Amino acid sequence: MGLEEQLGEELRKRKLTIAVAESCTGGLLGSRITDVAGSSEYFLGGVIAYQNEVKEALLQVPHEVISAHGAVSPQTAEAMARGCRDLFKSDIAVSITGIAGPGGGSAEKPVGLVYIGLISSHGVISRRFQWDGSRTQNKESSVRAAIELILSSIDEDG
Amino acid sequence: MGLEEQLGEELRKRKLTIAVAESCTGGLLGSRITDVAGSSEYFLGGVIAYQNEVKEALLQVPHEVISAHGAVSPQTAEAMARGCRDLFKSDIAVSITGIAGPGGGSAEKPVGLVYIGLISSHGVISRRFQWDGSRTQNKESSVRAAIELILSSIDEDG
Repeated sequence: MGLEEQLGEELRKRKLTIAVAESCTGGLLGSRITDVAGSSEYFLGGVIAYQNEVKEALLQVPHEVISAHGAVSPQTAEAMARGCRDLFKSDIAVSITGIAGPGGGSAEKPVGLVYIGLISSHGVISRRFQWDGSRTQNKESSVRAAIELILSSIDEDG
Repeated sequence: MGLEEQLGEELRKRKLTIAVAESCTGGLLGSRITDVAGSSEYFLGGVIAYQNEVKEALLQVPHEVISAHGAVSPQTAEAMARGCRDLFKSDIAVSITGIAGPGGGSAEKPVGLVYIGLISSHGVISRRFQWDGSRTQNKESSVRAAIELILSSIDEDG
């Protein structure tokens, strides 16, 4: 069973709904979750917030958060997750923001740096990842890490 | 050169921006478009409107359109494209709504039926497709058709 099927089973079992807010993965997480037949039972939808303006306008990420910490930061990831859950009224919301590459990196924030945010009944968390693959590999790794993060968060519910 | 690279080149050449509204493809179109490095130059973002409530709330698809014609219809596809362009203020917006399968089909609207909507300076259009593959194949076919539709629409501009 693939990770996305496992996710579907766990969400269905607990009657939890989910929504996504994606920047650098561009929709790949939503696509992967909806590769599972019957995913409309628990997947509500998502926002692909490729531009900062979209993060602010649709996901209510405060402009100050982005200007103080950058779009690729734990603060922005957490704010994206929060805004996503508010928008979709889902039980869980997960966000991904990072630098897929090959361009856009800096010494402080290198290519492959990704933050994943997650909000659930346990509150909001974020995790930092540093990938070293190609653009598409970094997207794949981020999606995998996001699904694993959701699964481990659900698991806490027992 | 892949279709998505070709799309990027054409959009960049004409300084056009694009946004997406995806139902049955769940984010795959956005992901494919953003597989291209530098796509942030022309790709603004998208809405994954998996539930009808999301189509109505975020994409301003009138409730009457969905109740009269169904979520999988040319009318809904066109309304999704319109709402998407309004939301993102993009030059072009493309929408995909359909039945990826294996469940959810009917005699009138069989599995694999997909409508793609597109709005540009030429106005709004929609196209009907009937795929006969697996769930993931139908998603792939829809994304490919959507990119080809955008390319042919851009081409009219000469």
